[in-house]
Amino acid sequence: MPLTPLFAAVDIGGTKIAGALVDGDGRLRHRLQLPTPATEPGAAVLAVVHKVLDQLAGTPDWSAVTAVGIGSAGPVDLADGTVSPVNIPGWRGFPLVAEVTAHPAVAARYLPVRLAGDGVAMAAAEHWQGAARGADNALCLVVSTGVGAGLVLDGAVRPGPSGNAGHLGHITVDLDGEPCPCGSRGCLEGLASGTAIARRALADGWRPPGEDRTARAVAVAAAGGDPVALASFDRAAQALAAGIAATAALVDLHRVVVGGGVAAAGEVLFAPLARHLDCYAALSYVRGLDVRRAELGTDAGLIGAAALCR
Amino acid sequence: MPLTPLFAAVDIGGTKIAGALVDGDGRLRHRLQLPTPATEPGAAVLAVVHKVLDQLAGTPDWSAVTAVGIGSAGPVDLADGTVSPVNIPGWRGFPLVAEVTAHPAVAARYLPVRLAGDGVAMAAAEHWQGAARGADNALCLVVSTGVGAGLVLDGAVRPGPSGNAGHLGHITVDLDGEPCPCGSRGCLEGLASGTAIARRALADGWRPPGEDRTARAVAVAAAGGDPVALASFDRAAQALAAGIAATAALVDLHRVVVGGGVAAAGEVLFAPLARHLDCYAALSYVRGLDVRRAELGTDAGLIGAAALCR
Repeated sequence: MPLTPLFAAVDIGGTKIAGALVDGDGRLRHRLQLPTPATEPGAAVLAVVHKVLDQLAGTPDWSAVTAVGIGSAGPVDLADGTVSPVNIPGWRGFPLVAEVTAHPAVAARYLPVRLAGDGVAMAAAEHWQGAARGADNALCLVVSTGVGAGLVLDGAVRPGPSGNAGHLGHITVDLDGEPCPCGSRGCLEGLASGTAIARRALADGWRPPGEDRTARAVAVAAAGGDPVALASFDRAAQALAAGIAATAALVDLHRVVVGGGVAAAGEVLFAPLARHLDCYAALSYVRGLDVRRAELGTDAGLIGAAALCR
Repeated sequence: MPLTPLFAAVDIGGTKIAGALVDGDGRLRHRLQLPTPATEPGAAVLAVVHKVLDQLAGTPDWSAVTAVGIGSAGPVDLADGTVSPVNIPGWRGFPLVAEVTAHPAVAARYLPVRLAGDGVAMAAAEHWQGAARGADNALCLVVSTGVGAGLVLDGAVRPGPSGNAGHLGHITVDLDGEPCPCGSRGCLEGLASGTAIARRALADGWRPPGEDRTARAVAVAAAGGDPVALASFDRAAQALAAGIAATAALVDLHRVVVGGGVAAAGEVLFAPLARHLDCYAALSYVRGLDVRRAELGTDAGLIGAAALCR
């Protein structure tokens, strides 16, 4: 069998650090993941990244690897090659690109190392192998505990100079809204994330039937007709619609891909989202946005990290 | 004197239609403008455009023209070459590119015709010869009776596939805000335009000393310390800050250029804008935005129309 070029992909989040080798069709080999020691010092987190690379480098396929791609929780700084993930306090201005470049198996072969924020990586993945395929311009968003996103512009994913472009979760959709941990106020994430959906439902009187007090349980209640649960999803959908419409108006795009745990709720989210988009996406050139569900699920981060190397 | 290549530029707004020949350094020759018969049938508006072209074509410099650039009030549709300016009801899906291409002096020389929305043209102008010069990524906005804008991304103005990218005036910054004539609600323009500044000041009890009830008079009152006038500018600045910060977070840019009649109010607008940006532009990669005043004034539309031809 002739050797196919492969990319080594690393996906770094606040909960897990995943790795895989990815072929030219976006298929994963040797996928593995380890828990992120998010509250430990930065060196401990780096040790897990190196462990993931050790395991990938130990496979016979490693010799076919031509580049290493990293998608990381943000913010990232492409110019410096550093990351400062909100949920990994031990990494602030952490020189991730330099550290990965210095990994013995990477250094030995002078492999180039590419970095982007996780929203950008997800967009790169969906554009390469998922629901944004064929779209010259697209917004790809992830609605889970937070809200992240990335942009495809003029046929290519656009990380922006810092690598954080598409950071939809922290645009203000409610000018006089609640202060956000980011320092701003009325951010989309504070209204539309899974965390926000659960918090709002609980505050408005929804009582979970079991242990699960997350947006997943709110979604089950909403699907069963619970009015408070439905209202919480509706409010999230309204905020998402305003943010999506703003993005479409600003950068002029038509395709929108929505993924993440909250999107898995299905019609409970997508039905009110379509209704609210009819209001907020009113300008002639943003009407009738093509909203699709993400296709790549939790592997999007790895596939996207590989896509950065193409 | 050797012949310098020139661009013919046409700037179409709801009040005036301007034209000029523009040299390779952005300098205007033979500038002229005529009132827009905005309420008349589309053919009457086109006749004014043709009259502007007639006059430019009658100059000896016309033989040096290599292309025609048009900046038009939007929305525009680049794919179809049509325009539907909100303030020119006689033009809906009007085939402006075809009509200008068919002008005898244009057709005789097979001159290419380029079109973009007026916000895009203004951004192209400021990027070529004004306050966005040297910036690889920038937002250029015009705050006057409305709010328009254009984007510079990765070193070039980005019209987007439809030609309307950067339409900052109609992003929602107030989720539950007032309905907007565009069909959406809580749009930036409804809070931050000159029209909005004057309306809010009047509603809150400001009484103009003379005939002028516009934002210009509110600005004079604000500069003199009138608290209602100051509050109206502050609210506009807050909405602008949220919209600018959202754009910076989404597309990842650092340079912001603000022009238009309301911006001419100076510190009355720029001081509260800076203060509110400290709140809304909180993410690490959008902090400390470089906000500058536009340099090209009312000629930006013509210079930008020419810039589209480069």
